[in-house]
Amino acid sequence: MNRTLDPSRRSWLESANPGSTDFPIQNLPFGVFRRAGAHGPGTIGVAIGDQVLDVAGCRRERLLVSLPEHVRQACLESTLNVMMALPRAEVTALRERLSDLLAAGTAQSPHRERVSRLLTPQAEAEMLLPCVIGDYTDFYASMDHAANVGRLFRPDNPLLPNYRWVPIGYHGRASSIVVSGTAVRRPVGQVRPQGAESPRVEASARLDYELEVGCFVGRGNPLGRSIPIEEADGHVFGLCLLNDWSARDVQQWEYQPLGPFLAKSFATTISPWVVTLDALEPFRVAAAARADTDPQPLPYLDSAANRGRGGIDLKLVVGIRTAKMREAGRPVSWMTQSEFARMYWTFAQMLAHHASNGCNLRTGDLIASGTVSGPSERERGCLLELTAGGTVPLGLDGGETRTFLEDGDEIVIRGFCERQGAVRIGFGECRGTILPAERPAIRRQGGPPAAHPLTVTS
Amino acid sequence: MNRTLDPSRRSWLESANPGSTDFPIQNLPFGVFRRAGAHGPGTIGVAIGDQVLDVAGCRRERLLVSLPEHVRQACLESTLNVMMALPRAEVTALRERLSDLLAAGTAQSPHRERVSRLLTPQAEAEMLLPCVIGDYTDFYASMDHAANVGRLFRPDNPLLPNYRWVPIGYHGRASSIVVSGTAVRRPVGQVRPQGAESPRVEASARLDYELEVGCFVGRGNPLGRSIPIEEADGHVFGLCLLNDWSARDVQQWEYQPLGPFLAKSFATTISPWVVTLDALEPFRVAAAARADTDPQPLPYLDSAANRGRGGIDLKLVVGIRTAKMREAGRPVSWMTQSEFARMYWTFAQMLAHHASNGCNLRTGDLIASGTVSGPSERERGCLLELTAGGTVPLGLDGGETRTFLEDGDEIVIRGFCERQGAVRIGFGECRGTILPAERPAIRRQGGPPAAHPLTVTS
Repeated sequence: MNRTLDPSRRSWLESANPGSTDFPIQNLPFGVFRRAGAHGPGTIGVAIGDQVLDVAGCRRERLLVSLPEHVRQACLESTLNVMMALPRAEVTALRERLSDLLAAGTAQSPHRERVSRLLTPQAEAEMLLPCVIGDYTDFYASMDHAANVGRLFRPDNPLLPNYRWVPIGYHGRASSIVVSGTAVRRPVGQVRPQGAESPRVEASARLDYELEVGCFVGRGNPLGRSIPIEEADGHVFGLCLLNDWSARDVQQWEYQPLGPFLAKSFATTISPWVVTLDALEPFRVAAAARADTDPQPLPYLDSAANRGRGGIDLKLVVGIRTAKMREAGRPVSWMTQSEFARMYWTFAQMLAHHASNGCNLRTGDLIASGTVSGPSERERGCLLELTAGGTVPLGLDGGETRTFLEDGDEIVIRGFCERQGAVRIGFGECRGTILPAERPAIRRQGGPPAAHPLTVTS
Repeated sequence: MNRTLDPSRRSWLESANPGSTDFPIQNLPFGVFRRAGAHGPGTIGVAIGDQVLDVAGCRRERLLVSLPEHVRQACLESTLNVMMALPRAEVTALRERLSDLLAAGTAQSPHRERVSRLLTPQAEAEMLLPCVIGDYTDFYASMDHAANVGRLFRPDNPLLPNYRWVPIGYHGRASSIVVSGTAVRRPVGQVRPQGAESPRVEASARLDYELEVGCFVGRGNPLGRSIPIEEADGHVFGLCLLNDWSARDVQQWEYQPLGPFLAKSFATTISPWVVTLDALEPFRVAAAARADTDPQPLPYLDSAANRGRGGIDLKLVVGIRTAKMREAGRPVSWMTQSEFARMYWTFAQMLAHHASNGCNLRTGDLIASGTVSGPSERERGCLLELTAGGTVPLGLDGGETRTFLEDGDEIVIRGFCERQGAVRIGFGECRGTILPAERPAIRRQGGPPAAHPLTVTS
């Protein structure tokens, strides 16, 4: 175990005290930030307590001189991509150095004053996307989710025969990935209500969230070369929280035969801090056990390491804060609590499968887990599941109910790891608030097209 | 009509004589090239006859001084992205200037000598991908293809009810897009033969091509704002040829419920020259007529301009050259001849649909049409259709037959526009040769994993 994970280590920064923060000194997740109100490219930072440490500033202040020049250069970039491509050991060395600078009672404490000047309160930092995301892939790795949703979309055929053999996934839209805090506009689209003869075009009435975990690719693989499962973890830089917003009415009408498209591509929100696999070391657990009747994974999806430590003991919660709750000063109402360790497929299996045909994964690519659901009622990671397809409204704290999201609703995802003998670490938040749809325009004869080209057909 | 399209215009370059080349002076498609054997980033060029004109060189030689500074700067980039984002009129002005420099009998002919020194024979140029492709989307816009394939994958339910309403599409994989000439490795994957109880992992035995046309996005749209169909053509920079390689056996087993994934993500080949919408002006035709029984497109997919000129009169052919043909010195054997103007959905409709939910298209994004098939037998744009799902072998010139592709097969796609009163222009070629699959490795006990992690299960 490297010294960044030593559970007895403490920072001289009070807000980093274990227990009171997602970001104790054992976590040190990477992100890209800008002082609120500033313009121009972002700066690489790590979260510590309620502060962001300016990593580029550490480089400029010559606090990283012990590290190789190319590692120090990577700290000056405006995205994490160059750093993500570094060998794991070099990132670990950088984390160790940053940990030493922030640790109480180490030889580095003399630097405390200089390091203090490189801290920005998170409340004053605007977080940006952490990296350039070349491709975004969304898996479907929770069998509970697949079965629950399958039952709604295909009552006669919920879990397809390939599910237990293939880590099912599809390509998502990279351009519309936004960072936590970005408002999400309700999409307009084609829907065909049950029994209607023709579709109509309207603002989605069945807007949903999906609780997911994202995985950033570190080192890529060349086109034409697969990734052995034994090496898959070595291609992971770190994880984030992810909300795969979904318009269920659009999805229902469009998704066959080629899968979800506009039902998902209007926005995907990620949390800004990338928690490194290094920091997650103490929380690795066995991959979820398979039922005796399930097939064993095919050899390319199976390894002793994956069976023993392919899972991550990460707890996830989803809450909602409606416009009414905000007005009344009420806190978030928690709807879902789920366990990432229960996923049917691990990230190592997803990566090995993804590259098994020679598809090249590139540094910064984002691989999402699919909705993280569990077997019990409150472990369902989206409203579609929680409300049985919108038929059973969900009661919220304060007396409101929801089947699907309403304008002004804010969805908050949090995630944290805790375990005996390790310091609890968190992922921060993944938030987004729903804006009303673009107003469908009345098309003006002869004039220029109005703001929104979608005319409602009723 | 701008003067670059004047059908009487001729270049002083002999190889650019109309009729003998895809690249007369009326075409001037943009691409990115490197002198064969050179290293480093590419240079922007336009194709003219059998040569490439170095556009960056024209800038350096001060041959573009009449153009605004930011346009001249765009010529110095190593990809087309900056140029693609320029307003259409500025790209037209650049094309006019390049046309003048290459035209016989204009006032620019005095520059002929300097321009000549900026020509590289295409035979000595290595073509690169023309731009950074952020997202790649693949549509399914030929009803003949959708019906033919639907019949094979779902005999009871070939054309789904949404087809005539929704331009069906899905997100593709951007990382594995390669330029014409790049060899394509046969993918390995999970397949489950008819009747087998469990899947096995093996090299795809049903490897196919798909004849498609690609469309590069010029100006993008901001997230949350749709694109009115009247403005969709204004967001298109130009077109290319595209081969959507497909592993049918992998596809059959994996594609439900989320669509094709590893069956397609191992490689997509594009032709290197981007033919601008400007150059295609003389070949715009009415969108394909719909059957009387078909619904009219919904208002956001319908406009007078699209009905009148949404189509492109582009003829496409696909040929094969097997290893045996190469050894025997035989030419390509042509298998398919198809008409792009027959597509059920136009690119304007695909773009308007894509952005209708507020999804942001970015400059350089690639939108593919889906397989271009027609109603008759020789108009089928892939082997799956040509061989009725591999049941009826296709005879090739020279006596060989094919159901699906064999190692060493080279697929060649060509496309051209010709019409009374206009000079014929072509798209060049989109080529790729199949390499044998990575050899499945015998897993060694204890040692490091062997080159290929996929163990054949037989």
